[in-house]
Amino acid sequence: MKIYDFVGAPNPKKLRVYLAEKGLQIPCEQVNIVTQENRTPEFLKKNPLGGLPVLELDDGSHLTESLAIIEYLEDLHPTPPMIGTTPVERARVRELERICELGVLSSVAQVFQNTHPFMAGRLKQSPDAAENARNRLAANLKVVDTKIGDRPFVAGSRPSIADCTLFAALEFAEFAQVPLDPAFKNINRWYAGFKERPSAQA
Amino acid sequence: MKIYDFVGAPNPKKLRVYLAEKGLQIPCEQVNIVTQENRTPEFLKKNPLGGLPVLELDDGSHLTESLAIIEYLEDLHPTPPMIGTTPVERARVRELERICELGVLSSVAQVFQNTHPFMAGRLKQSPDAAENARNRLAANLKVVDTKIGDRPFVAGSRPSIADCTLFAALEFAEFAQVPLDPAFKNINRWYAGFKERPSAQA
Repeated sequence: MKIYDFVGAPNPKKLRVYLAEKGLQIPCEQVNIVTQENRTPEFLKKNPLGGLPVLELDDGSHLTESLAIIEYLEDLHPTPPMIGTTPVERARVRELERICELGVLSSVAQVFQNTHPFMAGRLKQSPDAAENARNRLAANLKVVDTKIGDRPFVAGSRPSIADCTLFAALEFAEFAQVPLDPAFKNINRWYAGFKERPSAQA
Repeated sequence: MKIYDFVGAPNPKKLRVYLAEKGLQIPCEQVNIVTQENRTPEFLKKNPLGGLPVLELDDGSHLTESLAIIEYLEDLHPTPPMIGTTPVERARVRELERICELGVLSSVAQVFQNTHPFMAGRLKQSPDAAENARNRLAANLKVVDTKIGDRPFVAGSRPSIADCTLFAALEFAEFAQVPLDPAFKNINRWYAGFKERPSAQA
């Protein structure tokens, strides 16, 4: 197996944090999004949407979509469990991961796309779309903050894929110049704590 | 168990199609989004984000996020399999489901939010955001069209959660007045065929 990766983008980061938490080592090859290496005909054969990360399987086929890759690796390597161990536990982890992805990471990405100079010229930037995304981000962070409460990790007493996604989202928010509101005390505490884990450097 | 549902919204539809394909019967209670029943203090206790569907578990707790609900029900009722039976099969189904959700359904939703009279006043509508979403929708439909090819179902020879999501997305696109380009011949053929299944009426 091999991973097509880009240091600096949130979905590849989510996967690298996951791998580090699992103790899995898979070789990575960098594909530079900034210089559009992900838009070459050769790469588009691997992922026609041009997204990263991509997992190359041993039969030479390619698996795209970060969460599908993570669920696949979890299927192959159930220990340590990063998506719970019972149906209800798995449901709670996936529920939180979805909120962190669709509500937090996607909202940060939309603010980034509609405000950051890097995206100007790549699509039509809209201040209104950015404001909608900021509102959605705040609403979702509020829910995540309540869910975390005083737990050490997003979904409870041990790390899960929800931590991987939230960490990648908040790191990306820093890059995108979307400050994390100090009012979200539980998230801020969790974020400071997770930064100390070796996986945060992945 | 009990489902809080709204006929007319895409994520609840996705779940109902899934239940019908599985042959599962769970009582549904309607929560009217149009009259904002999903924004009452009582409902926000069940889902603080106000989204539907919500699954009420037998212990009285609530599980939100449609895909987390579906994965949970699949965990409890593995037969007939709607997310594959081997790690690679499951990965391929989840990969396609993600493209149908993040690339197709989310894009349709963004066009709807930025163009439809129903959404005017609920957020700031942006023609530029709508155009970006239309472009993203077309790019993702092209990939889904190629992936379907001449297969009877999105992920191969039997129905999967990818069909549930794509069907809900395309039905919502009709409501949102986002026409499906006839150029996507495989999707159009699949859509016409899936409409004939009993689950399509769910």
